[in-house]
Amino acid sequence: MASDGPFLVAAVTLMSATHMGYLARRVGWSRIALKIMPPVVTGPPEFERTFRAHQNCVEFYPIFLVVLWSCSTFFSELVAAVGGLVYMVARQMYFNGYVKSTKKRLPGFILTLAVLFTLSLLASIGVLRGILHKYFHIHL
Amino acid sequence: MASDGPFLVAAVTLMSATHMGYLARRVGWSRIALKIMPPVVTGPPEFERTFRAHQNCVEFYPIFLVVLWSCSTFFSELVAAVGGLVYMVARQMYFNGYVKSTKKRLPGFILTLAVLFTLSLLASIGVLRGILHKYFHIHL
Amino acid sequence: MASDGPFLVAAVTLMSATHMGYLARRVGWSRIALKIMPPVVTGPPEFERTFRAHQNCVEFYPIFLVVLWSCSTFFSELVAAVGGLVYMVARQMYFNGYVKSTKKRLPGFILTLAVLFTLSLLASIGVLRGILHKYFHIHL
Repeated sequence: MASDGPFLVAAVTLMSATHMGYLARRVGWSRIALKIMPPVVTGPPEFERTFRAHQNCVEFYPIFLVVLWSCSTFFSELVAAVGGLVYMVARQMYFNGYVKSTKKRLPGFILTLAVLFTLSLLASIGVLRGILHKYFHIHL
Repeated sequence: MASDGPFLVAAVTLMSATHMGYLARRVGWSRIALKIMPPVVTGPPEFERTFRAHQNCVEFYPIFLVVLWSCSTFFSELVAAVGGLVYMVARQMYFNGYVKSTKKRLPGFILTLAVLFTLSLLASIGVLRGILHKYFHIHL
Repeated sequence: MASDGPFLVAAVTLMSATHMGYLARRVGWSRIALKIMPPVVTGPPEFERTFRAHQNCVEFYPIFLVVLWSCSTFFSELVAAVGGLVYMVARQMYFNGYVKSTKKRLPGFILTLAVLFTLSLLASIGVLRGILHKYFHIHL
């Protein structure tokens, strides 16, 4: 690991983990602002939207990590790293939009899905090429 | 990564991520069918079961990824890949059962636990063998 | 993988996955003790605190895995493994405290954040050093 390694996608991954920590903080700040003590998860619509926005990010985070690293390992580290950065922007758009209104979550969410779809498609191409090469001696 | 790599378990992992995306869609379809707008997460019993079924899948997904890749890396990629496929079937049984009734979630759930237990046991054997070899020069 | 590999951090990772399974069981036992059938997630304050304690562990688990393995791969496997063990202790403190009262969750939670911050800082140092070396030929 001294001079080579997937440093770019590792940097993006660490940034995404920090971003997830920040979004968890946003829920905490919303709790303080609206005086909603844990373990309560219901309250004014704005809090419930903030809470659900975070939950949705949590639900998708392992899926994101899977497609990010699959794309990086089996297709292209640079493409994966760029995709990871776009995903973070999309999640921030989604989160900020959802806090304002349920409808405003959609543009960010659609971009989120587009990134996940692209990364998983490229990763699948790489994995399929690998399987054809390793097990069927077909070189594409 | 050109001609060798854990392509089989990578393929199963990408399939599992797609499966998780599909289960998230199932919650969305249930919302549309029963007219439950986000961020609301309560409603008719069928919606609440569907929602909880998905949540349980989300909670276990990182655990699944850990034991899948540990088994693949430290014991056997082929065994891990087969285990991963069985896990997906088990999760689908669990989800479909839970949507029908709380009790019908159990067969799929028990199979889920059996797969996780088996994968983690085999992974632990592999890791323990590695530690004995590397740090204690004991070759099993 | 025969004689070398990140066996220590792999062992800690498998332990953490088992620990997450145990915390999920704790919610199940709380359901049985307080007679709260799934899919219900509301009830007496003790159950709601137990449920939220587990949810918080679930939310942070992928973040933990990211910083654990980044620290192990790009900084030091031994430091990561020790950090992972401390994280498990911190999560257990957090969980046991939260079951008793909302306030008693704090010492464990602060220790949790300290471990995550330390692991991500060390991982970032390692990744940054790698990027400087690989792309800028700067050797620190």
